[in-house]
Formats: sequence, structure tokens, C-alpha cells
Amino acid sequence: MAGLGKQDKERIARAALARLMEPQDSVGLALVRALGAVDALGVATGELGAGPNLEREISAVLVDGGGASSWAGLPASVRRWAPRVRDLAPDRDLETMTRLGGRLIIPGDALWPEQLEALGLQEPLCLWWRGREQPLPGSGHSIALVGSRDSTNYGASVTGDLAYGLAQRGFTVVSGGAYGIDAHAHRGALSGGVASVPTIAVMAGGVDRFYPSGNEDLLRAVATQGAVISEVPPGSAPTRYRFLQRNRIIAALASVTVVVEARWRSGALNTAHHAESIGRVVAAVPGSIHSANSAGCHRLLRDGGAVCVTDVGEIAELAGGIGERLSEDRDTGAAVHDGLSLEDLILLDALPLRSASSVEKLTVVAGLSADAVRAGLGRLGLLGLASSERGAWKRSKTS
Amino acid sequence: MAGLGKQDKERIARAALARLMEPQDSVGLALVRALGAVDALGVATGELGAGPNLEREISAVLVDGGGASSWAGLPASVRRWAPRVRDLAPDRDLETMTRLGGRLIIPGDALWPEQLEALGLQEPLCLWWRGREQPLPGSGHSIALVGSRDSTNYGASVTGDLAYGLAQRGFTVVSGGAYGIDAHAHRGALSGGVASVPTIAVMAGGVDRFYPSGNEDLLRAVATQGAVISEVPPGSAPTRYRFLQRNRIIAALASVTVVVEARWRSGALNTAHHAESIGRVVAAVPGSIHSANSAGCHRLLRDGGAVCVTDVGEIAELAGGIGERLSEDRDTGAAVHDGLSLEDLILLDALPLRSASSVEKLTVVAGLSADAVRAGLGRLGLLGLASSERGAWKRSKTS
Repeated sequence: MAGLGKQDKERIARAALARLMEPQDSVGLALVRALGAVDALGVATGELGAGPNLEREISAVLVDGGGASSWAGLPASVRRWAPRVRDLAPDRDLETMTRLGGRLIIPGDALWPEQLEALGLQEPLCLWWRGREQPLPGSGHSIALVGSRDSTNYGASVTGDLAYGLAQRGFTVVSGGAYGIDAHAHRGALSGGVASVPTIAVMAGGVDRFYPSGNEDLLRAVATQGAVISEVPPGSAPTRYRFLQRNRIIAALASVTVVVEARWRSGALNTAHHAESIGRVVAAVPGSIHSANSAGCHRLLRDGGAVCVTDVGEIAELAGGIGERLSEDRDTGAAVHDGLSLEDLILLDALPLRSASSVEKLTVVAGLSADAVRAGLGRLGLLGLASSERGAWKRSKTS
Repeated sequence: MAGLGKQDKERIARAALARLMEPQDSVGLALVRALGAVDALGVATGELGAGPNLEREISAVLVDGGGASSWAGLPASVRRWAPRVRDLAPDRDLETMTRLGGRLIIPGDALWPEQLEALGLQEPLCLWWRGREQPLPGSGHSIALVGSRDSTNYGASVTGDLAYGLAQRGFTVVSGGAYGIDAHAHRGALSGGVASVPTIAVMAGGVDRFYPSGNEDLLRAVATQGAVISEVPPGSAPTRYRFLQRNRIIAALASVTVVVEARWRSGALNTAHHAESIGRVVAAVPGSIHSANSAGCHRLLRDGGAVCVTDVGEIAELAGGIGERLSEDRDTGAAVHDGLSLEDLILLDALPLRSASSVEKLTVVAGLSADAVRAGLGRLGLLGLASSERGAWKRSKTS
């Protein structure tokens, strides 16, 4: 690697490590923390030896990172990585990204999204990125919209509206590129987007393939106008395990994770739990209790982890951010009666709508003294709620 | 009142006071606390004088009860009550109740629902009650179902299902006898009821009239099979003020107040706030975010005061009570994969579905050592998730 800068050597090493290790391989990540990526790769491939000091250091990192307190030791991990060593070709992988109009970013790069630090030890080694070279948005400007693949018409329409509205306000919509809610989220964001990166698709497999194939055109548009990213290298299959790991990146990129539609058991709930575990806001969209596709959302609401959201304004508010508090608008329609004292409310109830009533009669109907009735009628008159005719009072038509 | 027992004299006095004072007349209620109902009636009608000691005592009761810290003094209240004194006829009101097959109950009666004590100073003076003479259920056995008058088909069907299901489990369904959600709640409870009092309608006006008239048949059935009650005497009109006051009784009778459908501004939210203020559980049923009739429910969920409920089991659970935790049933459908370690999950993902794969190939695909793959295959085999054929492995069809 002669002639390369430090960050470039680090990049090549991380490209190799990403192929060697599955996402969230705690021992591997701790090894990188301890030695840096270049030496970590040496140890992982068996080129460099590892002494008891390193074992202790990795143990310490694992404990700090809240990871496994007991582990099988570095030799076991090296044996685990060994079968993949012969497949390593980081230069080829980086060339592939260039050919696809993309790149590999790593922590320390100006383009690296800082909010991924919230994942601690589980921060991805790197991100393989298809899309224009421009800064990815910070978490305050990103909202994750996630949900079931088998979305209903309701879920589709709600997701589309929310994604469009959020994108119109300058938010970046993060999702997983899958069928259903994910696809509607990306599509809505593309049509409404005003930010330089209107939407990000975080893939479970390599970004060389637009998967699933039915979303190929959509994902191509996301790559062109936004970004398609993954922590696993080109050619990696989107396995179930990688889907679950991928969800933590969606959660970490955004300040708020909104579950729009999800069944009682759903991958979207996994994303919500990731978000919660790193202190990000989880929100859920309610729906019919007769819809199995809302059962997961209601579960999140019921278990207390999620905030109930029903429009773009409420989501923007949770992001603490750039959207105005549109959701408050509804409160301004307060009825005139709201400010009345109990006595005046009783008096208003006692006032007839048609034939006017005397003060004396009102004292009986309202159960108030004559003085109180007179004073109250004066106040109601000022508010336009009562009107008088030759000493007799009735309710105004507007009240 | 010669020849009458103490409780009977108290009853007649409270019957009179209930006509003299509007619900939640704090000064009047404090007067009753200070002197008992019989002497309080004397003071309220001007028959008994009131000295500065009594003023001080009432002040103390008001402060204790969290009521107004400043008040206009007893003479002002007496003037307020004066116009209604000439209409007092408690014996006639009690006769009316007997004629209607009902009665008047007051605190201290065996039939008085103890849970109303939670209202403190705002506990009703008495309850006018149409229905068979039998104990009203305790709060642990009562659930309030409330909501908008202009219910949707969704609200109607959900309310009917919940009321029927709750009644089937022996709960008493409390509501307000109005059109819409209230009516569906009473109807559902009548058809499903197994408790001696399947449902209670708490009216804002006198129980002599079944109001609104469109619910006359329904309310007659509630009176026959359950109970129709009110704190205001026969002949009282259901004014807006009394509707709002009535809501506190609905909230206090039940352990859980469920808002099934409510607009952004709705009387049902008032009931929910009453329930919250006396420490009772508030729950809300979610619905479409496109339905204005669910906006109030979502508001309650969002503001954090309400628990999201979607079925009878979840409501019964909140009542802490007699219904079993049916809602947990859904959890038993856990996937076999849930208990797997990360390594085994990775291995399961790596297993081909059709042509079997060698251990060596699996080490590359899964990124695990040969030992780990062998051990993992053993575990997956035991779980029926993997099967082998001449040393090669594939996924079992059931996984």
C-alpha cells in the first residue's frame, strides 16, 4: 500500500474487513477499535500475530461497548474469518463502486454521517454508497419511514402523503428499499423532495444489485436523486440476518423512526427497537383495529415506546426541527364558551333561544342570585352571546 | 321530620339540596361537609343563621378539597340559592322516584358506589336511580366506554364488539346514554351482559325523562336490566354545564375510561380528563388518521395520557381484574428462529433451500469456522431447521 495516504489505507483495510466479517461482529469491531483497521486486517487474516495483551484489550472494548462479557478468544474468531480470506479483493470492490458511480466512505471521512456514532461499537465499518458525492444529511434532517412489505391501501396512501410532505419540508426520508411501505416512502420523497438528498435506501445486500428486482427502477431513481447505501460489500446476498442488522443503520441515520404499518411481528418493529435502544424517537401511525397491518403499530403505542403521529407536522415536531408546528393549528378553533366561568356557562345554558326571559326567571332556572345573573348577562352581552330586549334576555343566534 | 331515622332525614335534605344547587357547587358541598346535609339545608334556605366560624370552616374545606382559595362568602351563595327555595319539594321528588320504580341513594347507604369517594369534595350529593334495587358494581368491575354522538360505522362496530365482549366477561359498561358511541355501548352490553347490572347510563338531566328521545326504548331497557342514574333531580333539563359535570361521575364509577371515537374537540375528552385527574386509567381506541372521528383518540394517545387499546383483553388487563390476559395469546405464535444465537441465524441464512451444501462451502458463505458450522448444523438439525444427506446440508422445508 505504498504511496497511499493513511485514510486511503484505512479505507482499503475496511473494505477487506467488511467482506471478512458479518455486520455487528463484535469481536471484529473491537479488534478494529484496538488496532485500527490496517493492523486489525493483518490479525484477522493471520498475517500478524496476536498476544495476550491484545486479547485483554479486546475484552475491555467489548465490556465498554456493552457487548458480550465472555467470548471464545481471538483464535476462535480468526478461525471463523479464515474461510473468507482467499476471497478478499478490496481493490476490486472499490473499483466496482467507482464503475457504479459510487464510493466507499469510512469513519473520519468528511462525508461520513456523524449520527452513526450513536451505535457505539456497532457503528458500521464502512458504507458502500451509490449516488452523487455530496454530504449525507444529519439526523435532525432525516426521518425513517418503515413498515410492512404487504402494505394495505391505507398504508400506501399514508406513507406516500407523509413522505411527500416531509420531503417538501426539506427532510430526507430514510427507508429500506423493500416492497410496500419502504417503496411508497422512497417514491413519495422523490416526488416531493427539495433537499439535495431527498431519500436514502439502506440495503441489506450489496448495492451493486437493486434488490428486490421489482423495485429496480425505483432504486435506480433513488441512487440518481438520493443515495443507496449498504454496509456489506458488492455481491453480498441480502440474508435475513443482514436485514435485521441493516435496520440499526436506518434507525441511527434518522432522528425519528416512524412505523407506518406493521403486523404484530414485523421487521419494522426491529428497526423501532434499534431506534429506541440508541435513544432516538420512535413514532407509530395508528390505524383500524381490524387491520392486522396496524397491529404492530398499536403494539408499539401500547407498550409505551412509541409516540402516536397522524400528520407531517407532528413528525416534524418530534424531529425538534425544521418543520413548523403545523399540528397546533387545529387548536385555534376554540369555542367562545371555553373561556367562560362556571357561573356564566350555567347562565348561558339557562338563556332561552327564542322568547326572551326576565332576570327573575333566570335566577330560578340558573340557580344564581339576581346580582350574579345581571353581571353575567352583561359579560355574555359583551361577548355577543346574549342579547336583551326591553329588560328580557335571550341567547344570541351566534352562540 | 319527626319519626324518621337519621339517614332518612339526611336523604330528604340531600334531595332538597340537589334541587337548590348545581352539580359541583363547591361552596354548597363544603357547607354539607361542615354541617351535614340537614343543617346545611337550613343555612342554604336561610332558616338557620351562619356565623363567622362557619365561614372559616367552609374556607378550610374548600382549601382541603383543592377548590377555590377565594370565595365571595356564604351570604353571596345563599342569595344565589334563594330563587330556587320556593320550588323545593323533596318529598314529591322522592315519591316520583318510587313511582318510576327507582330511589334516591346517598353516601352512607349500602347501595352507594364507594368509588365515587375518589371525587373528594366533588362527590355527588346523591344519585337518583331508575332500575332494580341491587348493589351497583365496584370500579374494578366497571369500564366506561365513551365517544362522539356522530359515530362512524367503524366506531359503531368497535363499540358494539367491545361492549359485548366486556359484558360477556362480567364487566359493567358505563356510558352517558347519548346517541352514537354511548348508545352502541349500552346496546352491546345489554346483549352480552352476564353481570347483575350489565350497563349503567349516567344522565345529564333528570332520570324521569329518557333523553334523547330517540334513545327512549334503549334507555328503558337499560333501566330495566341495568341502571339509569343522575345527580340532578327529576325534571332537570340536561344543560351543557350538566353534561360536563356528569362526565366526572362516569369517570369515577369505572376503573378504566375508554374513548372509542372522538373528534379533536369532544365531550368524551372531558370525561377522559376527569378520569385522569382522579388517577383512573384512560384508554383510547386508534383508528384511521383520515377519520376526524378518531382525531380526539389520537390526541389522547399522543399527549401521553391514554393507553392504546385494540381489544377486550387489553381493556380487561387495564382493569387489573377479572378478565384473563387474552391479548397475550398473540405472542405464543413466536417463530422458531427467535431463540437462535446470532451465529446460528447466520448459518440458517447460509443454508441452501434446494441442493445441499458442504460444510466447507458453508464456512465461506456464513463466515464461520468449520467447527462453528458443524456445531451449528447440529443444533439446527435438532430444531428441525436443517437436514443432512451424505454429509451435505440444506434447510428443512418447515423453516
